[in-house]
Amino acid sequence: MEQLRIIKIGGKVIDDKEALKQFLDDFSRIDGNKILVHGGGKIASDFGERLGIQPKMLEGRRITDAETLDLVTMVYGGLVNKKIVAGLQAFGVNALGLTGADGNVLSAVKRPVRTVDYGFAGDTSKEDVNTSLLADWINTGLTPVFCALTHDKKGSLLNTNADTIASVLASALAAHFKVQLIYCFEQLGVLRDFETKEVIDTIDSNDYQALKEEGVISDGMIPKIDNAFAAIENDVEEVRIGHFSTVNEMALMQEVGTKITK
Amino acid sequence: MEQLRIIKIGGKVIDDKEALKQFLDDFSRIDGNKILVHGGGKIASDFGERLGIQPKMLEGRRITDAETLDLVTMVYGGLVNKKIVAGLQAFGVNALGLTGADGNVLSAVKRPVRTVDYGFAGDTSKEDVNTSLLADWINTGLTPVFCALTHDKKGSLLNTNADTIASVLASALAAHFKVQLIYCFEQLGVLRDFETKEVIDTIDSNDYQALKEEGVISDGMIPKIDNAFAAIENDVEEVRIGHFSTVNEMALMQEVGTKITK
Repeated sequence: MEQLRIIKIGGKVIDDKEALKQFLDDFSRIDGNKILVHGGGKIASDFGERLGIQPKMLEGRRITDAETLDLVTMVYGGLVNKKIVAGLQAFGVNALGLTGADGNVLSAVKRPVRTVDYGFAGDTSKEDVNTSLLADWINTGLTPVFCALTHDKKGSLLNTNADTIASVLASALAAHFKVQLIYCFEQLGVLRDFETKEVIDTIDSNDYQALKEEGVISDGMIPKIDNAFAAIENDVEEVRIGHFSTVNEMALMQEVGTKITK
Repeated sequence: MEQLRIIKIGGKVIDDKEALKQFLDDFSRIDGNKILVHGGGKIASDFGERLGIQPKMLEGRRITDAETLDLVTMVYGGLVNKKIVAGLQAFGVNALGLTGADGNVLSAVKRPVRTVDYGFAGDTSKEDVNTSLLADWINTGLTPVFCALTHDKKGSLLNTNADTIASVLASALAAHFKVQLIYCFEQLGVLRDFETKEVIDTIDSNDYQALKEEGVISDGMIPKIDNAFAAIENDVEEVRIGHFSTVNEMALMQEVGTKITK
């Protein structure tokens, strides 16, 4: 099987024009098959503010009502995704920008209302990936660039966590490729200590349990690492979490960032 | 050669939610290979107003400065394009939303500054179409959905007239398919008389010259019909201009709307 690298970038690099340009340059230097998944960054909130669209939060989670869905469709699916695609073309990468609706590559189920109505939020799993179409595209030299939108197959787009999209794509495509999944963010890896910035080299499932109990890993890092473990459990070769400026080292499987193992 | 229908819709149908839904339903009923090209509609101006972005016009033409480019990228490339794609998926059409940057399917040259600097406006021609990739996609059952954005291959998107994009795609793809080009708009065809709404059945190049001299065809209709003739001169089988509600009849080459002939 051929190798495939799936790289996810978060908001911090998207919000910083120079950092994004440098990242796209670095990304273009990664040999072979690759997919980019991007989050949104502050830019959607900024435009939301200018448009008078109030962010709706509940228990720390964003609620996607109809006008918020329009906002993220414009900003993630339009502005951010297409700027990244055009930027990658300039670096010689034949990028193809995608929501899950395009080519029906990634569907999702609108999150059922239990106690909270999250609105147009979608939950997706590896069974929802159109792996044959994606594999075809990758094999013809295209580089898919995903934003954080899926669709319900009934005409509606759905807001979906970008970390989850990266994990689900990796898990599904592990049937076609030797997949390496790389989560890029603004830290050098999963930190043992925010003061000293000490990076944890590897985390296996036992470590993870202990680190959560000690409170070393908490809050927003938990869903990210859950997504990393989901990929590992679905035959993804390697998952690494590290700083976006070290993406080339991580892609070469150098000992940079935090490696997630079984 | 197999048949391919390229259908362009304008702003009026995009601005009307119910009309758009009906159009997408109609479009989904067209058998065989097809491409949809959409303009923008009033929605970009509406968002521009809410964002405090003033429309820049010069000699009746829109000037695309950097913030206007961001605006149209959000609205055309994001909101409108992705809603159409998700809507078509619900009608069973495997739509793939595209700017020219995606897969480098359509590049353009930034319009040179002579007396007027149009900003990020792109001029494109049939040589700028990645026909082999588009033909591949069409042959695997995908329906490309283009918004009015191309790219300069140097990292910038460019605002490009949707009528021109439809014509250029038709001309380029005539090498691979028997192409029918259909311009849908809010009139029943090219009108001889705005009062009586009498439709001109066919226009050949001699008629066109005369109709322009008589002032029957003027203003905004001229670039549209120029684009229609450009396609005819590039081996496109048939070009028809008519109301969006008659798209199915036009696709069946029934005598509806205005037919453009050599």
